[in-house]
Amino acid sequence: MNAKEILMKAVICDQSGRILQALAHYQDGINILMDLVNEETNADKKKVYHARIKEYLDRAEQIKERISRLGQSGSLLHSVSIEDGATGYSFHTLFGKYLSNDVKEVLIEEPYLAERYQFQNLVNFFEVIVKHCTDLKFIRLVTKTDSKNPENQMTTLDNIKTDLSLREITLHFTFEPTLHDRKILLGSGYVIKIGRGLHFYKPNNPRHTLGICDYDFRKCLQTDVDILRVKKFS
Amino acid sequence: MNAKEILMKAVICDQSGRILQALAHYQDGINILMDLVNEETNADKKKVYHARIKEYLDRAEQIKERISRLGQSGSLLHSVSIEDGATGYSFHTLFGKYLSNDVKEVLIEEPYLAERYQFQNLVNFFEVIVKHCTDLKFIRLVTKTDSKNPENQMTTLDNIKTDLSLREITLHFTFEPTLHDRKILLGSGYVIKIGRGLHFYKPNNPRHTLGICDYDFRKCLQTDVDILRVKKFS
Repeated sequence: MNAKEILMKAVICDQSGRILQALAHYQDGINILMDLVNEETNADKKKVYHARIKEYLDRAEQIKERISRLGQSGSLLHSVSIEDGATGYSFHTLFGKYLSNDVKEVLIEEPYLAERYQFQNLVNFFEVIVKHCTDLKFIRLVTKTDSKNPENQMTTLDNIKTDLSLREITLHFTFEPTLHDRKILLGSGYVIKIGRGLHFYKPNNPRHTLGICDYDFRKCLQTDVDILRVKKFS
Repeated sequence: MNAKEILMKAVICDQSGRILQALAHYQDGINILMDLVNEETNADKKKVYHARIKEYLDRAEQIKERISRLGQSGSLLHSVSIEDGATGYSFHTLFGKYLSNDVKEVLIEEPYLAERYQFQNLVNFFEVIVKHCTDLKFIRLVTKTDSKNPENQMTTLDNIKTDLSLREITLHFTFEPTLHDRKILLGSGYVIKIGRGLHFYKPNNPRHTLGICDYDFRKCLQTDVDILRVKKFS
């Protein structure tokens, strides 16, 4: 797709309320326009490009701010303090009741995705939302680059992206070096905040014991979980 | 426990209908009596032992025959032919509706338990029955010895046994060199026959894709599943 097509898609998504997907398209479109403006020699044309870039950057910034505000507001629906060594806290048990066909878009901010068990937790999370949010169309994943093995991180995320695309779900991942907080936003208007993000399960030891597949049997690390009601955003 | 205690337990289980557990106790008790009879020098005492051994062997044989007949009878409730590459066939989706607190005992005959994925399938099966059969007390597992690495097989099964015992479920495993058929019997009166036993899932490829934890996302090998209603046996 060229910049025009991408930005048209961005506007359509934006108008229909799919703001996470709109944001991704705006950012992709802006990147292409940036390349074009660098190659352009005609000053007038450069000006037009700059105006367009500014317009889309502003809109992308507005969406980001709106998402960021959502994560900091809302009324607390449910709060759990998970004790060290406790069981019965699979993702589905923790927040399954907030998953439904009202969830069209999901944002997940999870800084640490580098180790095998971390990718496994991510896939486990995706399994739960894909199964229970039958109209899910778009996932925005924000994480940090794995400085030790960035190729492995990219390959693994690409594999997951391809797998999700077969189910007609777009995974858009982006890297933020300063990301610290963990947060999950459901487009239907819920924020799930887990102190340790997705990674609050202890390893299964010995390996072949209950908890390999069903994380309700997994022992947990101590962490707090808050679920908030916010404005529906897509 | 000595032979007398074990055999008393066997009789109590037998009378209260927990025949799989009774069978395990009879067999353990018989083994101890066999050792005692070998050490015994007094001919009269030997005779008493022999009589006791015969009595318990007969009862164990009756139970085995009854279980074996159950596996060959019943009315077909449900039959599924799983196509190669199909998805949506986790254990829970296949036979979850037959799992309830009526299931106190489970028999599983699964010849092949040697590879890591095979133990994983077994644990996955146990997770499903433990979660949904809240009064489950006893599991009898019949398998074949892993001739290549019997120590690993024994250690893994022992680990699973210990884990289940923490949940107050006894796992009794026994080896039958000629075992071929696969079968699951629920004490509440259901037989589940899967052509390939527990091992009809394809490996996840690439690893980090949906289906790591939730086997409804796993691609299957071609196999047939029959679920039959039989007499409740425990």
